[in-house]
Amino acid sequence: MMKISCFLLLFIFPFSCIQAEDGSKLWLRYVPVSKEIAQSRSITVAAENPIAVRAQQELITFWRGQSIDLKLDKKLPYLKDGFKITGHSERIKVVANEPVGLLYAAYHLLKLQETDQQVSSLKVEEIPSFDIRMLNHWDNLDRTVERGYAGYSLWKWDELPGVISPRYEEYARANASIGINATVINNVNASPQILNTAYLAKLQGLATVFRRYGIKIYLSVNFSSPKILGGTSDSDPLNPEVILWWKNKVKEIYQVIPDFGGFLVKANSEGQPGPQDYGRTHAEGANMLAAILKPYQGFVMWRAFVYNPTTEDRAKQAYQEFVPLDGAFSDNVIIQIKNGPIDFQPREPFNPLFGALRKSNEMVEFQITQEYLGFSNHLVYLAPLFKETLASDTYADGAGSTVARLTDGTLRPARKTAIAAVANIGDNINWTGHHFAQANWYAYGRLAWNHQLSSEQIAEEWIAMTFSKDKSIIDAVKEIMMTSREAAVNYMMPLGLHHIFAFDHHYGPEPWGDQKGGRPDWMPLYYHQADTIGVGFDRTASGSNAISQYSPEVANIYGDIKLCHDQFLLWFHHVPWTYTMKSGRSLWDELCYKYDHGVMQVRDMQKTWDRLEGQVDQQRFVEVQSKLKIQAKDAVWWKDACLLYFQTFSRRPIPYDIERPVHELEDLKRIKLDMKHHN
Amino acid sequence: MMKISCFLLLFIFPFSCIQAEDGSKLWLRYVPVSKEIAQSRSITVAAENPIAVRAQQELITFWRGQSIDLKLDKKLPYLKDGFKITGHSERIKVVANEPVGLLYAAYHLLKLQETDQQVSSLKVEEIPSFDIRMLNHWDNLDRTVERGYAGYSLWKWDELPGVISPRYEEYARANASIGINATVINNVNASPQILNTAYLAKLQGLATVFRRYGIKIYLSVNFSSPKILGGTSDSDPLNPEVILWWKNKVKEIYQVIPDFGGFLVKANSEGQPGPQDYGRTHAEGANMLAAILKPYQGFVMWRAFVYNPTTEDRAKQAYQEFVPLDGAFSDNVIIQIKNGPIDFQPREPFNPLFGALRKSNEMVEFQITQEYLGFSNHLVYLAPLFKETLASDTYADGAGSTVARLTDGTLRPARKTAIAAVANIGDNINWTGHHFAQANWYAYGRLAWNHQLSSEQIAEEWIAMTFSKDKSIIDAVKEIMMTSREAAVNYMMPLGLHHIFAFDHHYGPEPWGDQKGGRPDWMPLYYHQADTIGVGFDRTASGSNAISQYSPEVANIYGDIKLCHDQFLLWFHHVPWTYTMKSGRSLWDELCYKYDHGVMQVRDMQKTWDRLEGQVDQQRFVEVQSKLKIQAKDAVWWKDACLLYFQTFSRRPIPYDIERPVHELEDLKRIKLDMKHHN
Repeated sequence: MMKISCFLLLFIFPFSCIQAEDGSKLWLRYVPVSKEIAQSRSITVAAENPIAVRAQQELITFWRGQSIDLKLDKKLPYLKDGFKITGHSERIKVVANEPVGLLYAAYHLLKLQETDQQVSSLKVEEIPSFDIRMLNHWDNLDRTVERGYAGYSLWKWDELPGVISPRYEEYARANASIGINATVINNVNASPQILNTAYLAKLQGLATVFRRYGIKIYLSVNFSSPKILGGTSDSDPLNPEVILWWKNKVKEIYQVIPDFGGFLVKANSEGQPGPQDYGRTHAEGANMLAAILKPYQGFVMWRAFVYNPTTEDRAKQAYQEFVPLDGAFSDNVIIQIKNGPIDFQPREPFNPLFGALRKSNEMVEFQITQEYLGFSNHLVYLAPLFKETLASDTYADGAGSTVARLTDGTLRPARKTAIAAVANIGDNINWTGHHFAQANWYAYGRLAWNHQLSSEQIAEEWIAMTFSKDKSIIDAVKEIMMTSREAAVNYMMPLGLHHIFAFDHHYGPEPWGDQKGGRPDWMPLYYHQADTIGVGFDRTASGSNAISQYSPEVANIYGDIKLCHDQFLLWFHHVPWTYTMKSGRSLWDELCYKYDHGVMQVRDMQKTWDRLEGQVDQQRFVEVQSKLKIQAKDAVWWKDACLLYFQTFSRRPIPYDIERPVHELEDLKRIKLDMKHHN
Repeated sequence: MMKISCFLLLFIFPFSCIQAEDGSKLWLRYVPVSKEIAQSRSITVAAENPIAVRAQQELITFWRGQSIDLKLDKKLPYLKDGFKITGHSERIKVVANEPVGLLYAAYHLLKLQETDQQVSSLKVEEIPSFDIRMLNHWDNLDRTVERGYAGYSLWKWDELPGVISPRYEEYARANASIGINATVINNVNASPQILNTAYLAKLQGLATVFRRYGIKIYLSVNFSSPKILGGTSDSDPLNPEVILWWKNKVKEIYQVIPDFGGFLVKANSEGQPGPQDYGRTHAEGANMLAAILKPYQGFVMWRAFVYNPTTEDRAKQAYQEFVPLDGAFSDNVIIQIKNGPIDFQPREPFNPLFGALRKSNEMVEFQITQEYLGFSNHLVYLAPLFKETLASDTYADGAGSTVARLTDGTLRPARKTAIAAVANIGDNINWTGHHFAQANWYAYGRLAWNHQLSSEQIAEEWIAMTFSKDKSIIDAVKEIMMTSREAAVNYMMPLGLHHIFAFDHHYGPEPWGDQKGGRPDWMPLYYHQADTIGVGFDRTASGSNAISQYSPEVANIYGDIKLCHDQFLLWFHHVPWTYTMKSGRSLWDELCYKYDHGVMQVRDMQKTWDRLEGQVDQQRFVEVQSKLKIQAKDAVWWKDACLLYFQTFSRRPIPYDIERPVHELEDLKRIKLDMKHHN
């Protein structure tokens, strides 16, 4: 039957004969081994732990190589939840300090197999970069997902706990396969209802599945929960009645989820309640919860993403609020800091809080879901973005004080190190909307495990497991992926421009955006500051002086228009249109070429992808091809909108060798997409 | 005041300071001379004729040079309505056989002046190529214009004859300035009401204005007029009652318009009534009217554009109907033949009726209005199209029997030679919707006057008079114009493809078009005949054998796939997708490159135009720029629609170095523009 359908397919599309795939398998496209192979070798496990048995089972089912012995060895704490693999062509030994280490080792071996690497002589030791490798789901209880572009939430609250969807296990397995061991399953803009007893029973259902893959559940909590759910007079963190309510609630949680991870809190930010409502500090709020969680080994991730509609540069506010509290936080509080000082833009300099907090635990929060990167329509490989932040040198503890080393325990010992990212996962058949958005989930997990991996290496692994082991296909797809993030920056916001998106939903350009009565710090005009002289936000000493929040080594570079990298120029400087760039071009011309280059890059991505027709399965080929068409059109939309708009200030021609606009600025201004900020 | 506004303009758009123009002046942007100049020379006219006085007046007002004597000399009939100009730096002598010749000479002199040519030593003799140089307006009595894209009809029937719009004279003057001397003011799909006595009074109002510029009025008439208006029992051309009605009507017309030109008739075509309704031939119908008009020197233009929903190739039908009637038409009947055998396509081979009619007067009908060329949104300079037909060698009377020489009296003497074209004029402020569509009106007039002018030369004249005398501007604009027609063919219908437009309104691509229950010969499928083997209409002996209607010299080339020019390949042949073209590429690849090249050509036109910012007035600059944006987007739409559709047959990849489609075929198929076939 398959031969026949292949023959028919040949007749319809002669250059394609690969079975269709819907992307539901992610990078886990292992094929079960034959009976012969299964009988030719043994897979043993010296542990009764169910996670260890899970590891054994994966290998029994999918490992095509030699015999493997899995062994738990509690005398190797330095391994953390990592593993050691040694072996020769006849037998492999796997040792781990924790059961989940064996499971990670199993996926490591399967990855070697699936990427055609040698397994006949192995000497591997992997210790994860971060202790807590966390996904943040922004899933609401009504199953919408804030900034979600892959369908509704995976969590079917109406069915739970009675019905356990098979996708919960698939989700857990996928995460375990890349080392993710923590998940905050609800939105940081949290409904208090998640702490209701009825929901705790549902959570227990999820936790039971996740536990088999070494994944702990965390919850986002609403700081007003005591008053709303418990009827306390307020939610003041120093109110004994409130504290008692939290104590009882935490106790209740641990009764049903003994390995519960802790709380993620967005407090006093964008309208969320918090300790400041009662004249208390972030530290007082966080420490109250931390003290209650501590006996259970629970943690509080306290978000530093705070800003208010003041006249102060939004980029400075988190620093201003948190640095004075440095040292006041309990040791099981981790300050969760967005990678940049604004909000998950296509490119931001690192957040100055990194390093500036000297006596507090700090962790990075990335965004995998593409709120500011074309939703699930644009192919943007985010490993280079993640790595750019992690590799940024803050100079906080001298040269080499990268964000990675500040948060992974290398420079500053911590009870637990952690990293988080906002998930891009929904109930779409392919999980992430865009087939290539899977790569961002994958890459985040891999970097959380080992932040020294290169973007290229991660891409190669992912492509080989997801599409094809063929070298030429890997090279082509990798080229697309490695181009994509810079392309997106170029066609959206080159040279340090930021936050010039359409209002609220953030899809498409709206550099002219200026909602009447709206918060200035939500308006593009606030961020680009274009006028007839130039464009860009002066954050030097002559402007908001945000550069003063960085170490002098950094501030000296960012703050000097001559030294500042082009990519951050308009983030830190208001630059005249006539300013001569490093390229020798004027700023205006350079801006034009950047936008145009972004369009060309997307078109090149299309060409490269189209050449793969028939070499990857037709379904995913066509679906990706179709998304790339949208991206190519959107890139032109971005370019035209931004150049035509900024031209009203620069009053200079777009260099004439550049492809001309095909839109009218006034037409583009009339576009109001009917999109919500959740699905 | 002007200085101030210029200064302000400089502030807003520093690279532009030329007064805005709305295009209403067409190519007639003469500036009145100063008193000093007017008094420094004399302009005399030796004739009392009002047209001659008009000529004198134009020169008095606008001529900046030496003295001029205009003289009528009835002893120079060889000049027809042309003129002779001789002169030196002090004085110019103009002689003409007819008063309008003096007017044409005046515009000739002004053209020399406005295009910076020398006038200090003149020896010019101009005799027009065709006697009747005619515009066909497809204007309806409700002021809609069939295939009109420049607003409503110029003719304000509700106001006429009481109110004479100043635009009637502007229209007549513009036509006279390029030698047009005849206008059919109503649609060939004619309302009988035009012959009503009330309308004749209105026509008299127009004729009075036109007469001052040497322009005769003609009317399209409905063959059923006697029955509908006169209450005759039928409209049979042999019915004495019908003949009497026409006699009286013609008499009535000549009473109010003594120089009335005659009738244009679309009979038995696309649902129009005609002699065949009564078993009479086209000749019997035409001759009846011709006999009645003859005493008044009137003419009948009888259209050969006839076809029926039969199984016969539509391209063959006009020939099949008219050739058997050859010799049967009266000598004041002229068969008006569309340039190609189908219908004003972006490119057609010449109509085989040319030359095949040996004993009948024949004239070309072109279409200036861009029914099949992007309406008034696309810049397509049509002189190359007109010239391509006129220069086509039919070999009817041996080598050199071009369409031009067959219809201009050179090869076959005629009572009167004629040429016609469907106008693109409406009541828009700029007359033609697109500023560059004015060039097509101009070019048609110039070629009707002298079909040996080159497209380049006409373009240069028009640009100099319409935009700027600056050599570099002329060169740039000329490059755009000279590229434009081939670009349109490339992005719409290269290699001989034809009639794959959207149904009815003909804007945009619809190669998949196949209206249920519709006439097959109105459907794109009928014309492109695409299948898995190849594409194109086999009109060779193995197919419809339309090539047999051409002279053997022509048929041998068109009919041989090896000899047939690429540009007509798919018009005459069903060609395999794998066929190796002259370029060495397969047909499929060649098709892809042609479409892509068309897109690139439009983008180059944009670049060239944009470089002119500040060198032409800002209003027309921006309006043309805006239209070019539409054209650039439409070109991509055409390319994607046609390539994605034909690819479903060719089942071959679009060559990978070509910019990829950005549309989905299924989305494009859903486009149904709400356009009518008139404005």
